[in-house]
Amino acid sequence: MNHTFAYLSAGGFLGLPITPDAPSSSESGKPFAVAGVTWDCSVTNRPGSRLGPGAIRQASRMLCDATHPLFDTSPLDKLVDLGDLLLPNTSLESMRAALMPQVSALLDRHEMVWLGGDHSITLPLLRAYRAHFGQPLACIHFDAHCDTWTDHFGEPSGHGTWVYEAFKEGLVIPEAFVQVGIRSSGVREAREFVNDQGGRIYTARELRGRDGAGLQDVIDEVRARLAQNGNPPVYLSFDIDVFDPAFAPGTGTPEPGGLTTAQAMTLLEGWHDLNWVGMDLVEVAPPYDHAELTSNAASTMIWTWLCGRLAACAST
Amino acid sequence: MNHTFAYLSAGGFLGLPITPDAPSSSESGKPFAVAGVTWDCSVTNRPGSRLGPGAIRQASRMLCDATHPLFDTSPLDKLVDLGDLLLPNTSLESMRAALMPQVSALLDRHEMVWLGGDHSITLPLLRAYRAHFGQPLACIHFDAHCDTWTDHFGEPSGHGTWVYEAFKEGLVIPEAFVQVGIRSSGVREAREFVNDQGGRIYTARELRGRDGAGLQDVIDEVRARLAQNGNPPVYLSFDIDVFDPAFAPGTGTPEPGGLTTAQAMTLLEGWHDLNWVGMDLVEVAPPYDHAELTSNAASTMIWTWLCGRLAACAST
Amino acid sequence: MNHTFAYLSAGGFLGLPITPDAPSSSESGKPFAVAGVTWDCSVTNRPGSRLGPGAIRQASRMLCDATHPLFDTSPLDKLVDLGDLLLPNTSLESMRAALMPQVSALLDRHEMVWLGGDHSITLPLLRAYRAHFGQPLACIHFDAHCDTWTDHFGEPSGHGTWVYEAFKEGLVIPEAFVQVGIRSSGVREAREFVNDQGGRIYTARELRGRDGAGLQDVIDEVRARLAQNGNPPVYLSFDIDVFDPAFAPGTGTPEPGGLTTAQAMTLLEGWHDLNWVGMDLVEVAPPYDHAELTSNAASTMIWTWLCGRLAACAST
Amino acid sequence: MNHTFAYLSAGGFLGLPITPDAPSSSESGKPFAVAGVTWDCSVTNRPGSRLGPGAIRQASRMLCDATHPLFDTSPLDKLVDLGDLLLPNTSLESMRAALMPQVSALLDRHEMVWLGGDHSITLPLLRAYRAHFGQPLACIHFDAHCDTWTDHFGEPSGHGTWVYEAFKEGLVIPEAFVQVGIRSSGVREAREFVNDQGGRIYTARELRGRDGAGLQDVIDEVRARLAQNGNPPVYLSFDIDVFDPAFAPGTGTPEPGGLTTAQAMTLLEGWHDLNWVGMDLVEVAPPYDHAELTSNAASTMIWTWLCGRLAACAST
Amino acid sequence: MNHTFAYLSAGGFLGLPITPDAPSSSESGKPFAVAGVTWDCSVTNRPGSRLGPGAIRQASRMLCDATHPLFDTSPLDKLVDLGDLLLPNTSLESMRAALMPQVSALLDRHEMVWLGGDHSITLPLLRAYRAHFGQPLACIHFDAHCDTWTDHFGEPSGHGTWVYEAFKEGLVIPEAFVQVGIRSSGVREAREFVNDQGGRIYTARELRGRDGAGLQDVIDEVRARLAQNGNPPVYLSFDIDVFDPAFAPGTGTPEPGGLTTAQAMTLLEGWHDLNWVGMDLVEVAPPYDHAELTSNAASTMIWTWLCGRLAACAST
Amino acid sequence: MNHTFAYLSAGGFLGLPITPDAPSSSESGKPFAVAGVTWDCSVTNRPGSRLGPGAIRQASRMLCDATHPLFDTSPLDKLVDLGDLLLPNTSLESMRAALMPQVSALLDRHEMVWLGGDHSITLPLLRAYRAHFGQPLACIHFDAHCDTWTDHFGEPSGHGTWVYEAFKEGLVIPEAFVQVGIRSSGVREAREFVNDQGGRIYTARELRGRDGAGLQDVIDEVRARLAQNGNPPVYLSFDIDVFDPAFAPGTGTPEPGGLTTAQAMTLLEGWHDLNWVGMDLVEVAPPYDHAELTSNAASTMIWTWLCGRLAACAST
Repeated sequence: MNHTFAYLSAGGFLGLPITPDAPSSSESGKPFAVAGVTWDCSVTNRPGSRLGPGAIRQASRMLCDATHPLFDTSPLDKLVDLGDLLLPNTSLESMRAALMPQVSALLDRHEMVWLGGDHSITLPLLRAYRAHFGQPLACIHFDAHCDTWTDHFGEPSGHGTWVYEAFKEGLVIPEAFVQVGIRSSGVREAREFVNDQGGRIYTARELRGRDGAGLQDVIDEVRARLAQNGNPPVYLSFDIDVFDPAFAPGTGTPEPGGLTTAQAMTLLEGWHDLNWVGMDLVEVAPPYDHAELTSNAASTMIWTWLCGRLAACAST
Repeated sequence: MNHTFAYLSAGGFLGLPITPDAPSSSESGKPFAVAGVTWDCSVTNRPGSRLGPGAIRQASRMLCDATHPLFDTSPLDKLVDLGDLLLPNTSLESMRAALMPQVSALLDRHEMVWLGGDHSITLPLLRAYRAHFGQPLACIHFDAHCDTWTDHFGEPSGHGTWVYEAFKEGLVIPEAFVQVGIRSSGVREAREFVNDQGGRIYTARELRGRDGAGLQDVIDEVRARLAQNGNPPVYLSFDIDVFDPAFAPGTGTPEPGGLTTAQAMTLLEGWHDLNWVGMDLVEVAPPYDHAELTSNAASTMIWTWLCGRLAACAST
Repeated sequence: MNHTFAYLSAGGFLGLPITPDAPSSSESGKPFAVAGVTWDCSVTNRPGSRLGPGAIRQASRMLCDATHPLFDTSPLDKLVDLGDLLLPNTSLESMRAALMPQVSALLDRHEMVWLGGDHSITLPLLRAYRAHFGQPLACIHFDAHCDTWTDHFGEPSGHGTWVYEAFKEGLVIPEAFVQVGIRSSGVREAREFVNDQGGRIYTARELRGRDGAGLQDVIDEVRARLAQNGNPPVYLSFDIDVFDPAFAPGTGTPEPGGLTTAQAMTLLEGWHDLNWVGMDLVEVAPPYDHAELTSNAASTMIWTWLCGRLAACAST
Repeated sequence: MNHTFAYLSAGGFLGLPITPDAPSSSESGKPFAVAGVTWDCSVTNRPGSRLGPGAIRQASRMLCDATHPLFDTSPLDKLVDLGDLLLPNTSLESMRAALMPQVSALLDRHEMVWLGGDHSITLPLLRAYRAHFGQPLACIHFDAHCDTWTDHFGEPSGHGTWVYEAFKEGLVIPEAFVQVGIRSSGVREAREFVNDQGGRIYTARELRGRDGAGLQDVIDEVRARLAQNGNPPVYLSFDIDVFDPAFAPGTGTPEPGGLTTAQAMTLLEGWHDLNWVGMDLVEVAPPYDHAELTSNAASTMIWTWLCGRLAACAST
Repeated sequence: MNHTFAYLSAGGFLGLPITPDAPSSSESGKPFAVAGVTWDCSVTNRPGSRLGPGAIRQASRMLCDATHPLFDTSPLDKLVDLGDLLLPNTSLESMRAALMPQVSALLDRHEMVWLGGDHSITLPLLRAYRAHFGQPLACIHFDAHCDTWTDHFGEPSGHGTWVYEAFKEGLVIPEAFVQVGIRSSGVREAREFVNDQGGRIYTARELRGRDGAGLQDVIDEVRARLAQNGNPPVYLSFDIDVFDPAFAPGTGTPEPGGLTTAQAMTLLEGWHDLNWVGMDLVEVAPPYDHAELTSNAASTMIWTWLCGRLAACAST
Repeated sequence: MNHTFAYLSAGGFLGLPITPDAPSSSESGKPFAVAGVTWDCSVTNRPGSRLGPGAIRQASRMLCDATHPLFDTSPLDKLVDLGDLLLPNTSLESMRAALMPQVSALLDRHEMVWLGGDHSITLPLLRAYRAHFGQPLACIHFDAHCDTWTDHFGEPSGHGTWVYEAFKEGLVIPEAFVQVGIRSSGVREAREFVNDQGGRIYTARELRGRDGAGLQDVIDEVRARLAQNGNPPVYLSFDIDVFDPAFAPGTGTPEPGGLTTAQAMTLLEGWHDLNWVGMDLVEVAPPYDHAELTSNAASTMIWTWLCGRLAACAST
């Protein structure tokens, strides 16, 4: 076959061209890269996030020249878009097997933003980061769900098991694992898993009605926690369902009572100069979106993170 | 005819089977029951809430094992779903006449959650509760609208008159009637009716920007008010349009400037151990919903109330 | 109350003003009038047709100067729009009681086009026509459903019983009752009722793949049948669900395998010079419509009928 | 885990209860059964058909007492609904491995209607039928796509390879394989595969504008072809995308220029007394549906087939 | 041609009739008037706001008798609806040329509420106000975007240039120009233009999590700023995209992290007695709306402003 | 500004890259090119076709390897996608002025497919073709509307005037101008203009129920007519609203009773070897589309025309 899945992205993030063979950041002076992982077959309810990368990229075009109003930086000159990785699409195991070497190669070339896809893609990504850095990572995990199930309805791995698996495999530093926005139903062992392991969960309940100055203590606590753990490389895994469904209806397992987009922006801005090494944004399911609400929120989060990274890099 | 209206619910709340003939709570050890009242012909704008019970039940399936993260309880073992009541569907009066004996019978068997339907169903429900308990009830009423019209565009009763009628009929204790989230247009006599009768209205304006600790005084005031009135049986009538339309577009008469789902969760959690005796959740109109936003919010409110009830019962 | 239901129509058909007190056709030279009957509480599945009159009127504005390409007539100078009748909205019986005298008065003044609303409005309309003309009527009935149920899920009357009731009450001439497009499930007695009474059913099956010249025999047969019955006054009852759902998704009980809009246009054009005395167009449910597909189809049918009437009148 | 995927069906076909442990047809006198296969991870474009079984069942409730207007039969007393099979959801291979024994067991008990899911489910179904009958089957295949790709974008099997695989594995009788409605782009070897193997393709082009009597020769030719091959057991595989997208937008790979629902009804009615042994209906993707257009079309096709089967059985 | 664009409004605001020739406020005792400007051809992304006036008017019908719960006033007796201005629709320059004299004439007769249309209509409106009052105006500008671009993608004027142009033309008092909710991407010169000129920008960031009492200082600061500038006539330009897309999806260039409807209501209520002389509400794009979320929010803002005006007038 | 309108297309037709500077067909061996004209400000009802080029290109990706089942050709190796032309967007006159030189330059380099945009783009295109070929053109015009208005609601030119203007300017050969599918309302002079000038109108009425062999006489007549006129260069202007709204809801001025996609395919296939020199496809308005129905139909028409062109070229 000389063609590809119809759901792969047509145009790049922020209107950039899609350049799968872009030169490495050292060659090009463009340290950041975006790549899509169009897999959505590990969800437990509504599929569709295979179309997430395309929708996020399309929505990002509304960002115009992409200069951030707080950081006064734009990623346009520092970023390439590598398009969507070519992956088999009928088996989680095969997809992950095909994903790993591609990820490893890209980590050598760029600081990556991964566009999901469902949350089952984060486990192989973390495996690659763990190998790349030779150490477990700190992680900030925005999500409505704790993703600490020990199985996926009888299967070993799905989109709700990766946190459990990452801890078990030693991919992350337990004390430097922070969850934000958790609120779904579930048994205590799963809900409190990260706390029990020494990490910190900021539930959605804990964050209700807090924004602006009201979030400063959360920002400070996490900075302190990471510092206490030696400021290891930090990975951001951002599940769009951390948002209240009003702000992000286009996702597979929405949970009322979630964050506003403003709250997440406050946190990402406050944490912009952490020792970030990469991020993913997952679970955007365009078939359930309306008027680009969800893809627009997603592209804004990525852009905020990138502009914060640029500001932090510029100031050091 | 050996068939029923196509809009009746297909599956039960939380994935439970629909068992119209479930044994009573004393026989079964399942004190709680859900039943639908698929009536929407008393609305003044957009109909559709006859499809609410089915949509709420469908959305509730996302709650998985239904263990609540605050209360650490699950209603799954304590709940039956009785399906939708069989009712005539072309006349409010006939519907209410057919509804009353069914409700009375069910109140003898279970603590009920009623799924509307439009808000005109609450008047006959309160009549049955008044008779069942032999006394008027306290009531907490979440709504964008005060529902104190003295007529329904020339007819005696509709979905906006039940509060007025309930007061006039002595179904409720005026001083123990609390409204939350009121904000619609209307003349002073209607708007202030509950205050004028000795009750308490927390308008949406009064609640703006308050959540978490910022709502504690509201929680406390209402607890005190009910205590001052001898902690009578309390009924919860929850109109989904109390939410801002961003959080619950699927309703017949949306009003901007409403509550967030998080605010309502904070209140229900704070009031979880009141002397509750039942609740309804009304005005979910699926034809105007998107991506299950509204039905998902509704099922989450019911689940929160049920889990709070279970926690309160367990601690006494 | 000094206001009305929010769902009443804002603007008139073809952009005409809404003039409830328009002078009679003899005074004004405008023989035709449109009026809405915003009732949808007798449906067995999805409600919403109370919003039909407003949506049909809005869609009709796309007809520009409204000159018909076949008939070369425009109703703009011959038509008034009387708006929606003021009716109680919580009881079929009360609605019909309030409807009857208004209808009778209007029949004295105009040749009417009634915008439903659900199909339960046709029974009181036929009663008024029967009284007005002092004789039973011929009727051409476009519908997916035969509407010959003997009860409405236990109630005497609904939106699926009016044909049975009209026959029983002697409102129509059995041999001059013609159904077009019938295809829904149902027991033989109901399905074949009209045939059994001496009328004629053209099922959707019988019409499959026939249009243009392929429908001429149907046109001719019906003309002959009406002539054989003395060309009595003919009433058109047009249920939008006669169309395949692809052409009219916005309705309460859609049935696949229906007519195309073109087929109906061919029939209405072919029958344009029958002894018409009025028509209704019912069951347009805007909440289920998309891109005005259904309301646009409805307004086109009405316009076709009006322009055909004008052409027929002009040629006599 | 004590719960299941949220996308499993809530209520049964035609309003029947879901009874996974229904007695066999010999014990119960109910020869027919429905079961869902909620798998959609082998599609090449838009996912969502995992929600197809639930949506088809919901839509089927509009069929009321389900008596067919042509056959005058109703499946209500002859049918059980077994719900959705429990299957792993992250790997095609694992899903098929889990599916096969369940299918084999059910073939011993009932004549089955399978609700997909994507078209990759048909291959394991045919394997089970081949084993069950001890012979290859005749097959009538409604589809926009020939499904004769030799690989799935590099993987051995997907939703577009099953016809090729079924021929290669000897599951079907080449001369008794009939395709209806094919029209998608593709290279000649794939497009003409079935013709080249001795079967017969009725392309959508060949069927344009033909319905009613205009399809009689197609009906007769296929009957003759099957007779010439000894009237072997015939399997119906019905991909909803055989319909023009106007009639069935809710599918993953829509192709303009397709069949009308009426055309398919004419064919199924004409072929109702073939030696049918089972059917599947696949690729209904509710996230892309509107107003139940697609699920309603699907449920009507299944109902037509069932009623035709009952009529054929009754007449022998 | 004897007809007009199909997108012009059918019915008036709050259910009032459309009366293009309404007598002036001095003659009629109705000081306020609404008029639509159905132009959307200057947008940089999604068009559709030509349909905004019609949608806002339709949504306003949910306000019933329109008595405001805070101000206890209703505009129903003080307001006329002049319908939509007749304007050419293919050229910004021509549209503005045709608009100016109509606006000037209306300013002599009423205090106006203008319904956009896109934001390019505000420049000619301000020109007319500047001429009418013989002095530059104060302005409060709600928007996600600063609208200070110096060109429109190569053209001199569009929907993102009017603030820059208004300053350059001396239409507004720089120190009395206040922006609320600004948050879009953009270069520093554009973002800070209003601050640089002596005005005041309250960015969305600055307002996060603040409502009720938390906004009092903003209210007070602006009042003080206007007083310091001599309380000149104040114009309100309200771009619906100031709201978070969750609250107003139906707009052309949505930006996450925006205001809630409640926040805007708090501000408008707090500023109700400023020296207002008129307002516009722009950029409501109904094709991207859902369930009237956006048009409902828009009509509520206008109603709040009108009722506040009435209360302020009554108290002086 | 260093960025462009957000609505410009992200990816190319059939998944090709967007290459605005592609070498000419003589240099590249790729005779065909696609370019977008993202203008929609001349419509009389619903805007949105500025987003048409992007949506058509996205939908075209479903065509896989793009080999046509009738012609057995694929345009993939013969086609470049030049992206969307850069044009001012606030004035029809300025847009056309900027468009003309770009079009002229491209006609020297490629045989073009133009993606609209609304139908007002066709007039400047025809002017360029007229100049390029030094003679007026034959034209086949698919549309619901005759587009022969003599003015655009008081302006000289819009999307409904281009046919009138093209005749008046001598851009087309009257006798070789063929309209297909016309059916909208309108006065006789406009409706019959093309016939009156010597051309031929095949109204939608004339084509009802005809497809396959039933359209052969239409195909033949047009071939004969063009031959009688010396087989001049033929231009195809395809307005998507020629289709019934069921098949193409996403357009600005839908008209019931239109063509099926199959009918248009039959005609384009039958006319594939005319002396074509270019085509446009206009009026696809994605905001009103559902599930890509309209954009998918559009891309299929273009693909059919391209494949037919390739087959015709190959056979000569």
